[in-house]
Amino acid sequence: MSHVHDLYPSRLDQHKSPFERLDPVVYTEGRERREGPLSEDQLRQYDEQGFLFFESFFSEREMQGFLDDLKEYDKDPSLKEQDQVIIEPYADEIRSIFAIHKLSERFDRLTRDPRLLDMAHQILGSDVYIHQSRINDKPGFTGTGFNWHSDFETWHTEDGMPRMRCFSLSILLSENNQFNGPLMLIPGSHRWFVPTAGKTPQENWKQSLKAQEIGVPDTKVLEEMTANGELVAPQGPAGSVILFECNTLHASANNLSPWPRRNLFFVYNSIENQMEAPYCGNRPRPEFVATREDVEPLRSLE
Amino acid sequence: MSHVHDLYPSRLDQHKSPFERLDPVVYTEGRERREGPLSEDQLRQYDEQGFLFFESFFSEREMQGFLDDLKEYDKDPSLKEQDQVIIEPYADEIRSIFAIHKLSERFDRLTRDPRLLDMAHQILGSDVYIHQSRINDKPGFTGTGFNWHSDFETWHTEDGMPRMRCFSLSILLSENNQFNGPLMLIPGSHRWFVPTAGKTPQENWKQSLKAQEIGVPDTKVLEEMTANGELVAPQGPAGSVILFECNTLHASANNLSPWPRRNLFFVYNSIENQMEAPYCGNRPRPEFVATREDVEPLRSLE
Repeated sequence: MSHVHDLYPSRLDQHKSPFERLDPVVYTEGRERREGPLSEDQLRQYDEQGFLFFESFFSEREMQGFLDDLKEYDKDPSLKEQDQVIIEPYADEIRSIFAIHKLSERFDRLTRDPRLLDMAHQILGSDVYIHQSRINDKPGFTGTGFNWHSDFETWHTEDGMPRMRCFSLSILLSENNQFNGPLMLIPGSHRWFVPTAGKTPQENWKQSLKAQEIGVPDTKVLEEMTANGELVAPQGPAGSVILFECNTLHASANNLSPWPRRNLFFVYNSIENQMEAPYCGNRPRPEFVATREDVEPLRSLE
Repeated sequence: MSHVHDLYPSRLDQHKSPFERLDPVVYTEGRERREGPLSEDQLRQYDEQGFLFFESFFSEREMQGFLDDLKEYDKDPSLKEQDQVIIEPYADEIRSIFAIHKLSERFDRLTRDPRLLDMAHQILGSDVYIHQSRINDKPGFTGTGFNWHSDFETWHTEDGMPRMRCFSLSILLSENNQFNGPLMLIPGSHRWFVPTAGKTPQENWKQSLKAQEIGVPDTKVLEEMTANGELVAPQGPAGSVILFECNTLHASANNLSPWPRRNLFFVYNSIENQMEAPYCGNRPRPEFVATREDVEPLRSLE
């Protein structure tokens, strides 16, 4: 199946300039928008900057159960052999665990925590489901970074996500500080779609989830994107939350500090924005990277 | 020539635990110590922490001439072909220029600036000369970092520096901020010598100046060194100065920001601490990395 008209063409043979996004950032209006939980100020900031930061959204104590679960996984040597577990390129340590909400009841319940789900409904203006969940581990001393990219650019080309109606919610499971490779974002970059150059190889994910090379904007574009602006790197204790739009450019440096950086990501997608065939023409990525089947709308925990 | 007794053995076949340094940190006493330019508080901090930071020691305007000189070098394509210019491992960009004070009259004069030289005399308690000078460039987006290491560990094993009576003075030629891979230091680490494992290959410098692998303490030791402490990453505008003891463990992450990080290093060594045969038994490194010949005591500019 091919797409007659691709609104967000990328992975191209030649350079194409960034262009303004065609989609809203916040999908609700009127009462639905005003009802919260996010205030008008927060929604405006999200609309303009492409992210929100909530220091200590959860308490460190609330996070402990999740960390205990992960400690159990760390003890299980068979975990590393599973496809959904990505190993660091230069060390035998876990870089990412995908579909963590399928592995763990506790994480699954957290996706339906009303404090999170209500934000998803308010921003996306529809029922939602989890497009992807993962733990990104960045071990002390050896953890490598993530190159600049827009998640949407990958999800569109490699997974067939049609529009920008989706966001990531990152819950810090460890302190993120200036030394352990915190998430860096380019404020306002979500307002532009940045086509990248280079054809997507089949099964690109096997390589890209270790170190992304395809789908990285060229440095000239990144310079333009940051010319009038600043970078931000939200930092705080475990339990803090970074909510960022699916098209916000982000990256993170390697971790030379002794402190592991462990972040959880839930990607909330609108039920009206389900995957089509990948726009790059390749086979779809596995279900644990990009949900195609389990698209039941999430219902809040009572 | 071999050394009958090596006080700081490293690059060993087997693990050896860190041990306390055998040398003073500050070499002056009495009136010589009290005469400045560093205050007793600053000397005590240097003695305890292994570094000092002077925000805006020079004005940004004073730095401009140096930056202009470097711009001229950047225009010269033959520069990259010289041995003393190190190229980034993953990009055709300059990583380091060694012996910059031999290339440029302006940098040479700066080594003899009394504001710097008087500190060297006060700390090292003798005449001094430049063991090494270099520019470390960390280009935006592509600049790679530096692994944890003690400079003294390298200078001792690969250059034959007998004792710890030496420090680096790093002058920031560009802003150093949390995003562009600033120098990180482990306060207090200079008080311990950390032997490393692994024999030094001949001409190791050709590889190590691009990406250091030999001479990096193992992660267990680094964890111990940081267990009760903190990391520090001094940050400030161009013209700021970081002075750090030759045995202070330091590192820096890669630079994913758009902002180049450009730092100048002068290594002041005591005239009484001149190079012997390298303790690793290899041939000495080139003069542009480790001064053996030009050891005339520096005299202050009038």
